[in-house]
Amino acid sequence: MADKYKHDFFNVSFPHEFVAVVEINRPEKLNAFKEIQWLNLQKIFDALSHDPDVRVVVLTAAGDRAFCSGLDVEAAAAGTLSTAHSDGARQANHMRRHIFEFQACITSIEKCEKPVIALLHGITFGLGIDISLACDIRLCTATTRFSVKEVDIGLAADIGTLTRLPHANVPMSWVKEVCLTAREFGGEEALRVGFVSGVVEGKEGLLKKGMEMARLLAGKSPVAVVGTKELLNYSRDHGVTEGLNYTAVWNAAYTQTADMKDAILAGLKKKKVTFAKL
Amino acid sequence: MADKYKHDFFNVSFPHEFVAVVEINRPEKLNAFKEIQWLNLQKIFDALSHDPDVRVVVLTAAGDRAFCSGLDVEAAAAGTLSTAHSDGARQANHMRRHIFEFQACITSIEKCEKPVIALLHGITFGLGIDISLACDIRLCTATTRFSVKEVDIGLAADIGTLTRLPHANVPMSWVKEVCLTAREFGGEEALRVGFVSGVVEGKEGLLKKGMEMARLLAGKSPVAVVGTKELLNYSRDHGVTEGLNYTAVWNAAYTQTADMKDAILAGLKKKKVTFAKL
Amino acid sequence: MADKYKHDFFNVSFPHEFVAVVEINRPEKLNAFKEIQWLNLQKIFDALSHDPDVRVVVLTAAGDRAFCSGLDVEAAAAGTLSTAHSDGARQANHMRRHIFEFQACITSIEKCEKPVIALLHGITFGLGIDISLACDIRLCTATTRFSVKEVDIGLAADIGTLTRLPHANVPMSWVKEVCLTAREFGGEEALRVGFVSGVVEGKEGLLKKGMEMARLLAGKSPVAVVGTKELLNYSRDHGVTEGLNYTAVWNAAYTQTADMKDAILAGLKKKKVTFAKL
Amino acid sequence: MADKYKHDFFNVSFPHEFVAVVEINRPEKLNAFKEIQWLNLQKIFDALSHDPDVRVVVLTAAGDRAFCSGLDVEAAAAGTLSTAHSDGARQANHMRRHIFEFQACITSIEKCEKPVIALLHGITFGLGIDISLACDIRLCTATTRFSVKEVDIGLAADIGTLTRLPHANVPMSWVKEVCLTAREFGGEEALRVGFVSGVVEGKEGLLKKGMEMARLLAGKSPVAVVGTKELLNYSRDHGVTEGLNYTAVWNAAYTQTADMKDAILAGLKKKKVTFAKL
Amino acid sequence: MADKYKHDFFNVSFPHEFVAVVEINRPEKLNAFKEIQWLNLQKIFDALSHDPDVRVVVLTAAGDRAFCSGLDVEAAAAGTLSTAHSDGARQANHMRRHIFEFQACITSIEKCEKPVIALLHGITFGLGIDISLACDIRLCTATTRFSVKEVDIGLAADIGTLTRLPHANVPMSWVKEVCLTAREFGGEEALRVGFVSGVVEGKEGLLKKGMEMARLLAGKSPVAVVGTKELLNYSRDHGVTEGLNYTAVWNAAYTQTADMKDAILAGLKKKKVTFAKL
Amino acid sequence: MADKYKHDFFNVSFPHEFVAVVEINRPEKLNAFKEIQWLNLQKIFDALSHDPDVRVVVLTAAGDRAFCSGLDVEAAAAGTLSTAHSDGARQANHMRRHIFEFQACITSIEKCEKPVIALLHGITFGLGIDISLACDIRLCTATTRFSVKEVDIGLAADIGTLTRLPHANVPMSWVKEVCLTAREFGGEEALRVGFVSGVVEGKEGLLKKGMEMARLLAGKSPVAVVGTKELLNYSRDHGVTEGLNYTAVWNAAYTQTADMKDAILAGLKKKKVTFAKL
Repeated sequence: MADKYKHDFFNVSFPHEFVAVVEINRPEKLNAFKEIQWLNLQKIFDALSHDPDVRVVVLTAAGDRAFCSGLDVEAAAAGTLSTAHSDGARQANHMRRHIFEFQACITSIEKCEKPVIALLHGITFGLGIDISLACDIRLCTATTRFSVKEVDIGLAADIGTLTRLPHANVPMSWVKEVCLTAREFGGEEALRVGFVSGVVEGKEGLLKKGMEMARLLAGKSPVAVVGTKELLNYSRDHGVTEGLNYTAVWNAAYTQTADMKDAILAGLKKKKVTFAKL
Repeated sequence: MADKYKHDFFNVSFPHEFVAVVEINRPEKLNAFKEIQWLNLQKIFDALSHDPDVRVVVLTAAGDRAFCSGLDVEAAAAGTLSTAHSDGARQANHMRRHIFEFQACITSIEKCEKPVIALLHGITFGLGIDISLACDIRLCTATTRFSVKEVDIGLAADIGTLTRLPHANVPMSWVKEVCLTAREFGGEEALRVGFVSGVVEGKEGLLKKGMEMARLLAGKSPVAVVGTKELLNYSRDHGVTEGLNYTAVWNAAYTQTADMKDAILAGLKKKKVTFAKL
Repeated sequence: MADKYKHDFFNVSFPHEFVAVVEINRPEKLNAFKEIQWLNLQKIFDALSHDPDVRVVVLTAAGDRAFCSGLDVEAAAAGTLSTAHSDGARQANHMRRHIFEFQACITSIEKCEKPVIALLHGITFGLGIDISLACDIRLCTATTRFSVKEVDIGLAADIGTLTRLPHANVPMSWVKEVCLTAREFGGEEALRVGFVSGVVEGKEGLLKKGMEMARLLAGKSPVAVVGTKELLNYSRDHGVTEGLNYTAVWNAAYTQTADMKDAILAGLKKKKVTFAKL
Repeated sequence: MADKYKHDFFNVSFPHEFVAVVEINRPEKLNAFKEIQWLNLQKIFDALSHDPDVRVVVLTAAGDRAFCSGLDVEAAAAGTLSTAHSDGARQANHMRRHIFEFQACITSIEKCEKPVIALLHGITFGLGIDISLACDIRLCTATTRFSVKEVDIGLAADIGTLTRLPHANVPMSWVKEVCLTAREFGGEEALRVGFVSGVVEGKEGLLKKGMEMARLLAGKSPVAVVGTKELLNYSRDHGVTEGLNYTAVWNAAYTQTADMKDAILAGLKKKKVTFAKL
Repeated sequence: MADKYKHDFFNVSFPHEFVAVVEINRPEKLNAFKEIQWLNLQKIFDALSHDPDVRVVVLTAAGDRAFCSGLDVEAAAAGTLSTAHSDGARQANHMRRHIFEFQACITSIEKCEKPVIALLHGITFGLGIDISLACDIRLCTATTRFSVKEVDIGLAADIGTLTRLPHANVPMSWVKEVCLTAREFGGEEALRVGFVSGVVEGKEGLLKKGMEMARLLAGKSPVAVVGTKELLNYSRDHGVTEGLNYTAVWNAAYTQTADMKDAILAGLKKKKVTFAKL
Repeated sequence: MADKYKHDFFNVSFPHEFVAVVEINRPEKLNAFKEIQWLNLQKIFDALSHDPDVRVVVLTAAGDRAFCSGLDVEAAAAGTLSTAHSDGARQANHMRRHIFEFQACITSIEKCEKPVIALLHGITFGLGIDISLACDIRLCTATTRFSVKEVDIGLAADIGTLTRLPHANVPMSWVKEVCLTAREFGGEEALRVGFVSGVVEGKEGLLKKGMEMARLLAGKSPVAVVGTKELLNYSRDHGVTEGLNYTAVWNAAYTQTADMKDAILAGLKKKKVTFAKL
């Protein structure tokens, strides 16, 4: 593994051509996050975004018990949040800087040019939900335990859940219910409302399914894949007129590629095609 | 009950600490609305919004037959709509003022800082749908009869349904179908598409379920609850970049609260905590 | 049929009062589209939009095998896409013009004032998805085969799918999965996620169901129907405050109609009412 | 004067047909504002907005020395701002409610359907700038003393100046300079940058000029005048595509008026025409 | 002149390489517009937009007296506006279609890929203002007489003035004054507020100045010129973050051009360079 | 000077309390920029943004001849732009990454929490304009030579000029003229249109004036100053309703400061007050 992928609390591996697997690795704390972890997460996804040898990313977590149990509350209490400021305005300004930095780390997943598949097993609470919503595709097991937990620590979730969940196209009445009550929900419910697009039996099955999907994406034209992710994200945030115009400008450049001819031929001949690096 | 909550056609009660119940009370007309009712509705929700003794609101309706059968068409015909104006432009200007005023009354539910749970039983037609969409969480019974009825009175619904339903994250093909056909749909279908997030047997069961959820919310930090409602509503109407920025500014202030420490301790000790009034 | 509706590769008929049926007619090529087809499609829908004898449109396709198998790739390769330009910037400018023209043709369905019901049977791939997303209501059969196919020809879909699918209120994790993998999905899955709002057995059943729905819409006030389509489309692309304001201005004019009184009377008397042409 | 216009600290008069003059009347305090004043201001402008006998409003202030010297800081310190709350989040929530209420009062000028001409003489500091920016047309004297004063009381101006000044189409470098330095500027400079559209010698001359303009507007079709104000304000806040669409919907109704024929005839015959009330 | 440029009421000429001159030609009516004229205007600008032999357009008008005196009111009264509809809603729908069509014709100037220089002499009233605002650069003579005239015919201007004037970055107080009063203003005032960017003595001088500027633009890289127009128009309608992102995507394609190297060399060698057609 | 401010091609100094001066230092190349310079610029402004000892920044440039002559074209040709990619799409993707990175560096000036005053002398071409538009206040000398030069190197300016200039509230006709012609303009013209807000005689005079303004801002409440910059920038990019709401949420926190009381007292007593660090 290149140095750029060696960071504490993460294992990054490349089990198949063009497929990167990022494993959150703090199982003894149920993969709870402290500051160094979100900073490292950003470094990893910034590197993956521009790495020509990577076309798809799988995000998973070590251990059997949890994808991520949320913020490491003890560490947070001892860290940034502990500094005293001379008045409420100054406290607010420091807090604002802190939230921006934290948000930017998680948003690096969304900004990563390549699609990211989240494999969610076990406890997926609080920050675990924020992280999964910055990913493109969410899969889970039947026994995954989800909770938008923040309200139970006196906090409106501020690292992405309250912003991205209404745009994940899951029903708003349900969104408000789970965000306001902090109640748990499982894999089947997550699938029914559309929070995940697939439920698999067991963590092993989940990894297998995730890797299959990743390998499928890795075999496709990286020009088409990168464009598809970007145009879907852009369109999510804009009206239809805006989205169509942006799409036209985008493809004015991105259709200038040998991949189109190669992909069509490959489809006709049922053969695998090798696309140039992006 | 304080005077500010005494208004014709409504009963407002406080059966549990921090829980307000607003009951639409015109059962003999299937809770159809005339002008005085929507004006009173606004007064009630404006007061609830700033009332430190209220942390969650339940909206229900009297009688067994209907949550709300819609606009009282007879009264409307005899009221604002009956005035003649000298030409189409002047008629339009008066109509525009009337619609604004009417919309503002229903929007007072959405603007209420505290979450509002709608308990929808029996006939829920036309304005009944508009009202329920301004609420945060919708629950119903298996026998609730829903209809976006307006097209059948020669009208494109203008008090909120056509605006809020596309943002309730229920499938657009279904939205168009029910808005254009005005066909009825029941509780199970409402749950399947996500219009409601829960279906309960019978009106009594519905009230019980609603009260349980309300009491759960009433026990949480009002700072976190108010922020969660606002940030979800804001994010629904803005792109992700905008939503994250607004969230950061919001929490720059709203994390300056004793509730966070108290809530965490309470969680650890499995004890009930008393939060200060908001 | 009027001349304005006679165009190669399409049959336009009027089987019931106020109901137009547009049939894509190139079954020998699985209703794949070449340039003349999308240009003709636009002419037809532009005419339908202002035709006072049309209140609802049904869009279907000839043959048993496909609604539309997508772009006619061979024709495309020989057409616009084949011209060489002196550098990448000039190539981009021509491509941008081409995509705009193509998008505008499909968008003519969305801009058509009257609601359009898409009846999707058999193969519905690539451009078939783009077209169906510009329609208002989507129905299919249990054996319809859907695929967002573009990524498999090295292309990010640019005629509407990537823009409109995130606004069709189907879950985003599923949207990303089907757009990035290009995997097929069937009628039941399409219904479960909300891509269609009804599944019917067989093409014949589908036509029957579509015609019933069309006749139902054709009997309603055209003022109310046209307004309902427009206000839902507008609201999909704007926040709630914007949507409510636009609605008020719209109905300031569109409530100045005899249809309201007539529709109410008709409802009370359970009689059919005849509305004036729009 | 009708009761609806009798409010402390304001004189409302109707010196010419369809012309209302609102005079801020607290000259002994340089027309500084305390809470009751902005609440009264809102009541007055809400009434003017729908008053069929009013077609244009002139806003002026009593005394020779000041249009408005800003917030009455002493009263503010003793009022809302003095309440103590249990923590920063609760303090923030009360402050937010307070700012919203205050902003809404000033915004009532912008929301008033009829155009408002601000006549700015003498000291026009702080809140005086906020108020003038909510008006449509600003005129001043050569000796008017302007200052965006808030930064000098430790405050980022929050009642409209920082929001509306960038949209008044005065150069941004100048905007930032006067908002950050709080330096004074006079009538000539205000005209040069476009903050005002006219400078007149002396307060008397200013009133004369303002009344002439008001009478000119009062003689025009109220349908055209109300539409012009609304469409300019809407367009200021939206892109061109949005603005054109809104305009088309607006005029679909507002061209249904006898005023068009009457105004054209009047123009041809150089005669005064009497338009119906709005 | 090619057939595509032969249209009644217009002369189109090509006096210099890459420079097109469009002359409005109805001087006997002070270049007032009736329907056929705006339809023809659109045909001309649509053709110019994609014509590889055109890189810049000059818009002028025949005769000494007027650039355009506005709508031909008599023709309008006898045309679309004269049709009677059965009720206000149906009238509104037809009016909306009419305004859209009319707006689209004038907007074809803004959508024309190549920059358009408006040379405004003599009477420039009503529609003359709408047209000039759809152009990129406005020049006039010292004796040009401008007026936003619509309010004097009982109309809020709906073909672009009220939408585009607030985005022309001329002071809003002045904008409201001239739109509400319909008072005339001359060339010097137009320059002072920024409505035009140059004033020249006499129509002949104006044409000379316009042609010089046009020839200057015609000599530059068409890739750079087209991009500059589009990016300025896009940015005018979007916030800075949006504008920067769009610019990056645009130039990802449009920097792939030989023009950059050629232009730099030409600059160094002070030589004229010949750019390939666009 | 702290290490965080030591970067090649820049001198950073702190001549007065809370005032930082950033000097671009490559006078032998007329302060043209190559890649390392914009990367260093970002590092400096990111540090200034959070530095509690800095409340205002002055941006100037070494030497008598130029503030910045633009991009170092030779270096650019040899750098990023020289890499060859296998097709147009891949080339576009690398170009897009490059532009984003470059834009982000210049945007760091706008994102810097503290106001930045640009002192523009001599040649200020191309990138020099982009940089100055990211600053808050622009001052120049009578002999400053400005040019939006990019079109003359075959390029639509992509580092901010075409995005920010339409939002600098300078007249759009003038903006289009100078961006399309690349003609030079001087200090007086810059002041007349509002591109700068002040013109001073000579570079020395400019520095003196800039330092006076900087010291004035440095003496004000940093809470008020930071808020004023942020709220003006936010409002520039949003409509009035959005701007007012954001302002209310912002000041809900930022009015919780001792600065307000201290500033008011200082004003009354005409005394200098010392505000706590931010």
